[in-house]
Amino acid sequence: MKNTIGESFAITLFGESHGPYIGFVLDGIAPGIKIDEERIRQRLSLRRPSGKISTARVEMDEFKIISGAVDNVTTGTALTVIIENTNTKSSDYDSLKNCPRPSHADYTATLKYHGYQDARGGGHFSGRITAALVVAGAIASDILENKGIYIGSHIKKCGSVEERSFDEENLKEEILRLNNQSFACLENDKAEEMVLEAEKAALDLDSVGGIVETAVYGLMGGLGEPWFDTLEGVLAKYIFSVPAIKGVEFGAGFSITDKRGSEANDNFFMKDGDVLTLTNNSGGIQGGISNGMPIIIRSAVKPTPSIYKKQNTVDLKENSDTTLEIKGRHDPAIVHRARIVIDSVVALALVDMCSLRYGTDWQK
Amino acid sequence: MKNTIGESFAITLFGESHGPYIGFVLDGIAPGIKIDEERIRQRLSLRRPSGKISTARVEMDEFKIISGAVDNVTTGTALTVIIENTNTKSSDYDSLKNCPRPSHADYTATLKYHGYQDARGGGHFSGRITAALVVAGAIASDILENKGIYIGSHIKKCGSVEERSFDEENLKEEILRLNNQSFACLENDKAEEMVLEAEKAALDLDSVGGIVETAVYGLMGGLGEPWFDTLEGVLAKYIFSVPAIKGVEFGAGFSITDKRGSEANDNFFMKDGDVLTLTNNSGGIQGGISNGMPIIIRSAVKPTPSIYKKQNTVDLKENSDTTLEIKGRHDPAIVHRARIVIDSVVALALVDMCSLRYGTDWQK
Amino acid sequence: MKNTIGESFAITLFGESHGPYIGFVLDGIAPGIKIDEERIRQRLSLRRPSGKISTARVEMDEFKIISGAVDNVTTGTALTVIIENTNTKSSDYDSLKNCPRPSHADYTATLKYHGYQDARGGGHFSGRITAALVVAGAIASDILENKGIYIGSHIKKCGSVEERSFDEENLKEEILRLNNQSFACLENDKAEEMVLEAEKAALDLDSVGGIVETAVYGLMGGLGEPWFDTLEGVLAKYIFSVPAIKGVEFGAGFSITDKRGSEANDNFFMKDGDVLTLTNNSGGIQGGISNGMPIIIRSAVKPTPSIYKKQNTVDLKENSDTTLEIKGRHDPAIVHRARIVIDSVVALALVDMCSLRYGTDWQK
Amino acid sequence: MKNTIGESFAITLFGESHGPYIGFVLDGIAPGIKIDEERIRQRLSLRRPSGKISTARVEMDEFKIISGAVDNVTTGTALTVIIENTNTKSSDYDSLKNCPRPSHADYTATLKYHGYQDARGGGHFSGRITAALVVAGAIASDILENKGIYIGSHIKKCGSVEERSFDEENLKEEILRLNNQSFACLENDKAEEMVLEAEKAALDLDSVGGIVETAVYGLMGGLGEPWFDTLEGVLAKYIFSVPAIKGVEFGAGFSITDKRGSEANDNFFMKDGDVLTLTNNSGGIQGGISNGMPIIIRSAVKPTPSIYKKQNTVDLKENSDTTLEIKGRHDPAIVHRARIVIDSVVALALVDMCSLRYGTDWQK
Repeated sequence: MKNTIGESFAITLFGESHGPYIGFVLDGIAPGIKIDEERIRQRLSLRRPSGKISTARVEMDEFKIISGAVDNVTTGTALTVIIENTNTKSSDYDSLKNCPRPSHADYTATLKYHGYQDARGGGHFSGRITAALVVAGAIASDILENKGIYIGSHIKKCGSVEERSFDEENLKEEILRLNNQSFACLENDKAEEMVLEAEKAALDLDSVGGIVETAVYGLMGGLGEPWFDTLEGVLAKYIFSVPAIKGVEFGAGFSITDKRGSEANDNFFMKDGDVLTLTNNSGGIQGGISNGMPIIIRSAVKPTPSIYKKQNTVDLKENSDTTLEIKGRHDPAIVHRARIVIDSVVALALVDMCSLRYGTDWQK
Repeated sequence: MKNTIGESFAITLFGESHGPYIGFVLDGIAPGIKIDEERIRQRLSLRRPSGKISTARVEMDEFKIISGAVDNVTTGTALTVIIENTNTKSSDYDSLKNCPRPSHADYTATLKYHGYQDARGGGHFSGRITAALVVAGAIASDILENKGIYIGSHIKKCGSVEERSFDEENLKEEILRLNNQSFACLENDKAEEMVLEAEKAALDLDSVGGIVETAVYGLMGGLGEPWFDTLEGVLAKYIFSVPAIKGVEFGAGFSITDKRGSEANDNFFMKDGDVLTLTNNSGGIQGGISNGMPIIIRSAVKPTPSIYKKQNTVDLKENSDTTLEIKGRHDPAIVHRARIVIDSVVALALVDMCSLRYGTDWQK
Repeated sequence: MKNTIGESFAITLFGESHGPYIGFVLDGIAPGIKIDEERIRQRLSLRRPSGKISTARVEMDEFKIISGAVDNVTTGTALTVIIENTNTKSSDYDSLKNCPRPSHADYTATLKYHGYQDARGGGHFSGRITAALVVAGAIASDILENKGIYIGSHIKKCGSVEERSFDEENLKEEILRLNNQSFACLENDKAEEMVLEAEKAALDLDSVGGIVETAVYGLMGGLGEPWFDTLEGVLAKYIFSVPAIKGVEFGAGFSITDKRGSEANDNFFMKDGDVLTLTNNSGGIQGGISNGMPIIIRSAVKPTPSIYKKQNTVDLKENSDTTLEIKGRHDPAIVHRARIVIDSVVALALVDMCSLRYGTDWQK
Repeated sequence: MKNTIGESFAITLFGESHGPYIGFVLDGIAPGIKIDEERIRQRLSLRRPSGKISTARVEMDEFKIISGAVDNVTTGTALTVIIENTNTKSSDYDSLKNCPRPSHADYTATLKYHGYQDARGGGHFSGRITAALVVAGAIASDILENKGIYIGSHIKKCGSVEERSFDEENLKEEILRLNNQSFACLENDKAEEMVLEAEKAALDLDSVGGIVETAVYGLMGGLGEPWFDTLEGVLAKYIFSVPAIKGVEFGAGFSITDKRGSEANDNFFMKDGDVLTLTNNSGGIQGGISNGMPIIIRSAVKPTPSIYKKQNTVDLKENSDTTLEIKGRHDPAIVHRARIVIDSVVALALVDMCSLRYGTDWQK
């Protein structure tokens, strides 16, 4: 249902880049849950642009809980949070409805909304909206961590620079470390290379994309459904909401097709009474259901479509070809900012699935 | 909601591999739609195993409409179809609850259903259930084709053999041709190589995976939502229902991360009054919404997990490690059978999204 | 979503009066639940017509579980049941599309389905379909009774004859007794009067309506939502699915408007550590949420619209007024048959609400 | 799903009586719809207390659109409105968690939310929240009126005073007149009597209830589903969200049980090519589907549970019986304020059902 996702723990998202507020309603949260504002702020800071490879638009993301909590403890009714938009220079975007930016949503928004969309700053399509997802995701992550379930992502690839994958033997530690890094890499030198690559693209008036790898540690087995609400399908639907994602894969993902069955299959073994698998090509999911191993997800983030280079487009008023040079503020890379958004939607998805299976009070 | 997907045109799937029937209820179909039984049978034949690289279990897939149609014309009420299971040798599967097959759903089903699942033939997780999806998908495809929307897939990769992608200039023709091929390749010689590779794997008591590339021709722009019900997210959720899928990507997909923004961006141009894009790295979707260009999807199909080779597993009763040699019937490759199932769920997804946007009577 | 109701424990209903089968899919049932066929048959017998005041169409309601259970124990996957239609004389109904029966669904079906509906025997609108609801309701009732929650109804009014309401002090006993009565009254002499009244109407080629009063004993407090998913709203939506219902009220219902607040308010008192209310004008629901007292519901059942008397109608083909004498089989009263259907949908509603709140495994 | 209702045109409601804001998100509204602020204000004024029989808490209901519209024209994305709570004296409500007010939601909220609910002013259960419903309902009503569909209600009964029902021959005129009356009666003298009765109750430290009769003029036939999403069931679910409603009936409602079939049946006749019915005991709905005649609904509103008279309750801390005298502001009657809320939710329900059937752009 459009702007709402989740069946038991559901989020409804609203807002436009240059409207007065963005925000969300979180319905189905259990009563008695402590909202940790500090934690929310810390996670918002991971989404906020910083350094040379990010947009100059920096907002403090001051969020305000306007329903569903008293003294930062949830009441059990719909929790609503609004975030004020403070830094809204609208003049930059005036011509977007007529001359759509390539690979942006300008043109498809016109098709869908018949030209009535709020085009200022990307409107409802703006990455700005993801700040609301991060706030909600922080609350969901807290709920999960209280159950021993940890989510973390690293920048597996930025431009042409790629780093190693998670070490599943030390997964919890790696996740905890990543969740405090503003540019989340497992390898420090690779992080530096990635930033350099993005900066170089910026100098060329261009941009780069990348791959975010996400792990979930500590998820119970048995979550997900055989058809339709498969764990992969549900997670993918949440993740494809994050702007710029063009692919989602689990475990070995597309590269599993390079293996034969005997290599791809995750053989079982017992360890201290637990059933584990020797490999984790399944990414912790078999038959659409979690098996107790770490969930491993990779998401492809396309290069920021806003570039300063001149591009070809059309003039919808004149019905003619034209060219476009995008002005305004934009990032040569967003993969490092996307990762906390991906963590956030994964957290929202998992709390919903657990609440549906175990009931609302499971959250406490 | 578990076994139901779709908000306006919804399918509810049921059945187990060795139960009396599998089937589905299709709710929200418009009245007055002609059910083309011949078309359904033709598409079922594309799913049916054939040749050396498929399982010896061949069933005629006799389907029966038990509600929602009179003389094969829909009444507008819930359309129910049942398909009898005729070929059910159950003895082969007796030990699966105790000694789960690697990378199958045996173990996760035990976690989820506390051991009450119907383990015979994979039960509700069996690929057999996809026959019901194909019947429903045939009906959905007919609805779409009446609107000029065509869906088709080819086997982009099988084992290590890979063929070219769609020629978007001749897309409709390619789709029509593929929809009559039992082993759906764009290049005949590659098809032969792929079959050889699968046969070789079979001789090695092993299996291969592959990649299915799917195209949608003729889809109107403006379909999809900016958040949550993005066209990518909705399609991915349907596609991850198809067993063995471990990754889904759109347009350039993961490889878009190898490009800079200036290469990745799909520049617009006008042609005969239509807005087109020079490239289609977006796979026809920008901002979660269709842009009128072909939708391009690739799905990674893991190697068939059922292999004859000895594998390591655990004995859940004895709480110990053990080994397993899977008997019974199984395919060294399923990628060629999966493609019609993918086409089917894509068709179901699109009819639902169009019905939600344009109303139920749009289907006619 | 049309023919599906329930968010965690959901039923999808299908079938037409004169099609091969009617049935349902029940999704979200926990694994390991024993299906008691005897109990289902007993409840079906309460719906089945009997005696002079019921239709001559008697079917054995042979149901068959075709998915979701092995040896009558649920597997946790979608449970599908089909019931064969054996007694289908279609010739009686030929002219209904042109000359709609007053207060039947013939005319509205034509408006909705553009004339494509299956008109034979009322098609999808037939009371016949409620047999499927009764089977599903029997399963839901068993789940509830295992938790100490009992549902029962009596015929509060039939024609002009009215009997007393439930004695809330002996509610469980009254419910258990009613659930074994084919004509469910609390007062035997009133039952006889009601039957006489219906028989008299039949002699006059006419029919009578009535009121069903339903009680739920043992329901936990805290069930329901303040807005939209109020316990009253959810129950009412399920109950209005039962054909011929024109009103639903809770507790004192419409008569609460005859009282002042001081009389209408249910004052609290303690008894053995439990919070009870002195009166139960709220019908066990305050603020949309159960308070632990018995749930009391009354449903108005209109007189059977099928009567033998000549009536005025229109000829849709000729665009003219005409008259109609309905032939075929029909009941001078259905209130006594409706009650088990009402019990059934109330049971389905409550299992769904409990499953959503407490998780699926609560059902066991 | 808890605080969200609607499948294509969905409202999510949030807020507490004494929180900073109440409000809603309206998702699925078509782009290009003009929001008429004047109309919203006019309808809010009908909900606002006025005169002796209403609470002394008067708020200006200043609403603010924070997303989904530019210059009061909808963009097609989620429309969010917030209304500030300005008049919040919280001290009056301190003891409510321990000593629940009879027939209020205090006790059931404690059961549901384990005591974490915001008890101030009734919190999320407060009638205050209905201001948000009225704003959303004004927007929905505008959409409907542009299609020739008009909704209006009158106070059929207040205390013991009852007035006549709608004159279906002059229905549109009656609706238009009612929609400008602050105390909506069809008969002026009855309105005066009703106010007197409520004032008399106030003098007695007591309160009265009543019945709201609602009509929908101009609704197309064919709306509603045979099962579950019946027009009656959907409307009832929305209406039971309005606080204090204990019964909902359609057409002749409960009194249809006083008639025989030959009197209850609505015979058809043709008039100027339209199919009409001689009577309208069905309230415009047959088989769960609209038939083109006016929709007639009656809703029972219980007496305001807040009365000044001393009442019995319990002390949940002391586990003992006690008495309670409610202080603060409250109305001796709310039936006259409830009617615009009922109109509002009926409008929301109908726009959703039409959008689902005809597509989102139908709204324009």
